Amino acid sequence: MTRPTLASPRPGGRPRDESRDHTIRQAALELLAEHGYDGVTMDRVATRAKAGKATIYRRWPSKIALVMDALTQFTEQTLQVAEADSMRKELVAFLSAFADLVGHAQGRIMAEVVSEMPRNPELRAAVRERMWNQRMTTSEGIVNRGIARGEVGASADPNILVEVGTAMILQRLLITGDPVDGAFVEHIVDDVILPYARGV
Amino acid sequence: MTRPTLASPRPGGRPRDESRDHTIRQAALELLAEHGYDGVTMDRVATRAKAGKATIYRRWPSKIALVMDALTQFTEQTLQVAEADSMRKELVAFLSAFADLVGHAQGRIMAEVVSEMPRNPELRAAVRERMWNQRMTTSEGIVNRGIARGEVGASADPNILVEVGTAMILQRLLITGDPVDGAFVEHIVDDVILPYARGV
Repeated sequence: MTRPTLASPRPGGRPRDESRDHTIRQAALELLAEHGYDGVTMDRVATRAKAGKATIYRRWPSKIALVMDALTQFTEQTLQVAEADSMRKELVAFLSAFADLVGHAQGRIMAEVVSEMPRNPELRAAVRERMWNQRMTTSEGIVNRGIARGEVGASADPNILVEVGTAMILQRLLITGDPVDGAFVEHIVDDVILPYARGV
Repeated sequence: MTRPTLASPRPGGRPRDESRDHTIRQAALELLAEHGYDGVTMDRVATRAKAGKATIYRRWPSKIALVMDALTQFTEQTLQVAEADSMRKELVAFLSAFADLVGHAQGRIMAEVVSEMPRNPELRAAVRERMWNQRMTTSEGIVNRGIARGEVGASADPNILVEVGTAMILQRLLITGDPVDGAFVEHIVDDVILPYARGV
């Protein structure tokens, strides 16, 4: 699919090729999973995506811009949560999607990003601003709908999903290696998050 | 202090110099904090500790053996928890020590280790077997004393301290950068762990 990009028209340039952009982003994610953050270079991305380096640099001014754009699009697609008729269903749906993201096929991507963060302040700031704040927004939405339905009190911590739920999943992924499966997600929601949200 | 080591007598060798061992371990930890796991080399450790490489290799056959020995001794000293008269006090004491460990002066050591784990199966296995299992043992002890005192029911999850508490602290350290202070530790214990342990 080829169409002009409304957001950033480039005078005199060819219309942006969205499928080309997708291929380049995908190449960056594959290299990240295979070789870690250090192993992602614009040269390798160009080779893998069969694209010219000039094409890549016209679209993304730096490696970090490309990696963060690819990651953000990828996680947004993966972590879409539809509104449901209960807070529990929405919590389980989100944490299941998060567990799939970090625990299965693409899990190595997130592990590589997290492992690069301590030594890379620019990446750390970008992950916090562009990816983590979106998780906080998701968490607030779920808790606020729970408050509106009367499932939890108005003082329920809006960050609960992230502060507790993703933390428990990430620790298993990054440290213990214990399974992150449906039973674990339901355990987090039923035994830890919901009692905490209800303020008991 | 120089004394023969009872655990591993070496026929014909000089008695092991414990203060020398300590200096070498300390050099490994400093290099880990400053340069990351890749930056720890036996050459650098030898220079920093003013020790011969042969001396180091006689004691530790490999870099990973030295790093894990240094880490294990360091965390054991830091994470000693005295028995107290309530489960809450013991939970707060342990998590405060853990927060000090990962959140302050030496925090970079743990961040570097965690960040190396995804790409280093040998280190990952060693951390899980030698460091994480000790945390599980600590958690079981605290929960079992709580059960014996009647503070929580007999079905309380023995892994609760680690599964929830350290996870919440590590996520702040590794990802969000939010403060890991006394207020956060009390929040974890009072709002999340204890309600979960009481099975409400």
